[in-house]
Amino acid sequence: MIAEIIAAGSEMLTPFRQDTNSLYLTSELNALGVAVAFKTIVGDKLEHLTSAIRIAISRADVVIVSGGLGPTQDDRTREAAAGALGVPLRRDNDVLAGIYRRFAERRITMPPNNARQADVLDGAQVLENATGSAPGQYVDTVVGRHRKILVLLPGPPKELKAMFEAQCRGRLQESFPQRFMARRLLRMALIPESQVDARTAPIYKMYDDVETTILAGSGEIQLHFVCSKRTQAEAQQRVDEVAGRVEAEMGEAIFSSHGESLEEVVLLMLGMRHNTLAAAESCTGGLLSQRLTAVPGSSRYFLGGAVVYADRLKTAFADVPADMIATEGPVSAAVAQALAEGIRQRTGSTVGLSITCIAGPGAGTGPDEEKPVGLVYIGISFEGQKARVTELNLTGDRDRIRLWASQHALELLRKAMLELA
Amino acid sequence: MIAEIIAAGSEMLTPFRQDTNSLYLTSELNALGVAVAFKTIVGDKLEHLTSAIRIAISRADVVIVSGGLGPTQDDRTREAAAGALGVPLRRDNDVLAGIYRRFAERRITMPPNNARQADVLDGAQVLENATGSAPGQYVDTVVGRHRKILVLLPGPPKELKAMFEAQCRGRLQESFPQRFMARRLLRMALIPESQVDARTAPIYKMYDDVETTILAGSGEIQLHFVCSKRTQAEAQQRVDEVAGRVEAEMGEAIFSSHGESLEEVVLLMLGMRHNTLAAAESCTGGLLSQRLTAVPGSSRYFLGGAVVYADRLKTAFADVPADMIATEGPVSAAVAQALAEGIRQRTGSTVGLSITCIAGPGAGTGPDEEKPVGLVYIGISFEGQKARVTELNLTGDRDRIRLWASQHALELLRKAMLELA
Repeated sequence: MIAEIIAAGSEMLTPFRQDTNSLYLTSELNALGVAVAFKTIVGDKLEHLTSAIRIAISRADVVIVSGGLGPTQDDRTREAAAGALGVPLRRDNDVLAGIYRRFAERRITMPPNNARQADVLDGAQVLENATGSAPGQYVDTVVGRHRKILVLLPGPPKELKAMFEAQCRGRLQESFPQRFMARRLLRMALIPESQVDARTAPIYKMYDDVETTILAGSGEIQLHFVCSKRTQAEAQQRVDEVAGRVEAEMGEAIFSSHGESLEEVVLLMLGMRHNTLAAAESCTGGLLSQRLTAVPGSSRYFLGGAVVYADRLKTAFADVPADMIATEGPVSAAVAQALAEGIRQRTGSTVGLSITCIAGPGAGTGPDEEKPVGLVYIGISFEGQKARVTELNLTGDRDRIRLWASQHALELLRKAMLELA
Repeated sequence: MIAEIIAAGSEMLTPFRQDTNSLYLTSELNALGVAVAFKTIVGDKLEHLTSAIRIAISRADVVIVSGGLGPTQDDRTREAAAGALGVPLRRDNDVLAGIYRRFAERRITMPPNNARQADVLDGAQVLENATGSAPGQYVDTVVGRHRKILVLLPGPPKELKAMFEAQCRGRLQESFPQRFMARRLLRMALIPESQVDARTAPIYKMYDDVETTILAGSGEIQLHFVCSKRTQAEAQQRVDEVAGRVEAEMGEAIFSSHGESLEEVVLLMLGMRHNTLAAAESCTGGLLSQRLTAVPGSSRYFLGGAVVYADRLKTAFADVPADMIATEGPVSAAVAQALAEGIRQRTGSTVGLSITCIAGPGAGTGPDEEKPVGLVYIGISFEGQKARVTELNLTGDRDRIRLWASQHALELLRKAMLELA
């Protein structure tokens, strides 16, 4: 049982825009035990769209087309599907009445074009669009001797999702042997993908019935486990088992065993320790604070802090001695330590976190002139303890160095709290 | 002359990962005057991949396949292309020697699998991979009576781009009547897409030879103009003409007439006025500062500031009277004004910018308890002037409110500087 997803729309054949509906649809189809074998992106040309749908029907059991159901001349999914299936379109009076009603409610005369939205494939069930104007269509038919399901959905992601959830998921579920899916997501920071794979592959490869995906990026490794079974309990048991064994292998490298973000985990640990955090950021310029405050409820444990981009603000907001900056340079272990302690004392938090680095592309100034781009110092100050400082040498461009510096700061703070626990 | 882009790799048929190479390839093909008519994403199954390449060759003149050129059993693009074209693969001794050499240099014995990377389609030119191990292949052939170009490129974006630039662009250019492409990008903030379209469509629709794309998102509208002609000057003249007329229509709503970001434009204007900026952010928690400091060289005009997430930091870092916060509430016009003035004075900058808002999902506290989620106050203080405050009511979730608040702050500052100029 395989599926193909077709995205119809010329804008997705430009360098500027991508199909994103297919990620959602893939997740939903997988949950029903159906694998996606092909995705096709095609423009508004009737001949191209018709041939794409025809090919999809020939090679897949379930075909979902998104887009091209609007009222304009560029919206040709209905005609193309009719051509591919070899069935006529008929104008559905109920659908037409609904479209007239919507225009009437808004006291607008319906442009004649809109009647096209009432054209329905012979044999199709109409899928009402609760959040937009284009109705969808659901065809369950036999082509040759094979059962084929063809679903036409609107392109706007909100309309597509609402329609799929309310009117397709159940219909599809009834068409297949019922499956239940369970997922687990383990997350690790700042560890090489090859190391994770070498240590975990011997475990997850033993679980043929669990699909494992390793994703790496932005200083993080994610291990996704997905299993689909006849009962929810059975599926859950399998993903929990493999996740549990991988957790035992990777230990504290795993910051999240149920998908929480690193920021959420750090905030949670601060809360459990009855700590509050303040940050002094130089090169990251607010990125770390922004990540923490993106979490709802973060204000309970994160007080804020200072963006000490200019050197004089390091003194003004975190009491770093001006002569220390002049001799050691703003990117130095001494300044990172003073910043972490200073911001903690000035804000009255129990934990202070600091980042200072040379993010590039230009070099540092004064005593930092000779220091390499990518040099980072991270300071962590706990009340009643001398601040600890970590030196890193990161590679990459400005964006990468800033992102990874903030990632290291969060991960170092997490590990420091684990140690103290 | 149309192209199809095929992305090979089962990971792109999961809910987690998308093909991104096709955006780069589309832009490059468009620049050569070739439109992309189909994109196909297919997994590692040989039979699926072979049929996808066969279909692509039948319906497109240029077919570019990315991925599946590695050494593992899952890398089957070579075999699939051979099957689709009906030509044999031969092991290329030069390529094989190169692979052996690379392993020898790293003092590693070559795993026998890697020899597969030396399998070359009969008639293909080998494309060297300067940044990775998988060589590419370029086939220029005749199928039926039609000329077909099939290019196999490695999946990793860096390798793909380097290989395309060094070894494909020139070859393709020689194959087609030479075209030169010019682009212009106009950007606007916080204006409805429908308004932009209504005002600009009568202009850009007059330029049949210029492709216009309107993109909306994250509080910004982008108008992309692309034109491809026999000479660079001719193409440039056309995009400059349509861009110039659209600029005249939209006036100061356009913040960028050559693609610069809003942050870059604001920093540039600060520089022209010999101003320096400091920011006090509450609900945005560093997002605004982070956006400004992401621009290289921003330290000349942006000093930093404070993330005054906790109320007592508003007093500690920006001298907002504690009793003002207690009576007016932290999300109030009075506090926004005091924050903008306070951060300017405390940092010694000439401009102070402040944001305070209820980002949700929870309500505010104290006097803010009854205020709606999405209420935003933005303060701007210029030296020697009373701070101006703008009230906004934004909709959406926490992320959207924070992003749009930072967008409004930058746009308001830009407009204020325009006024003063």
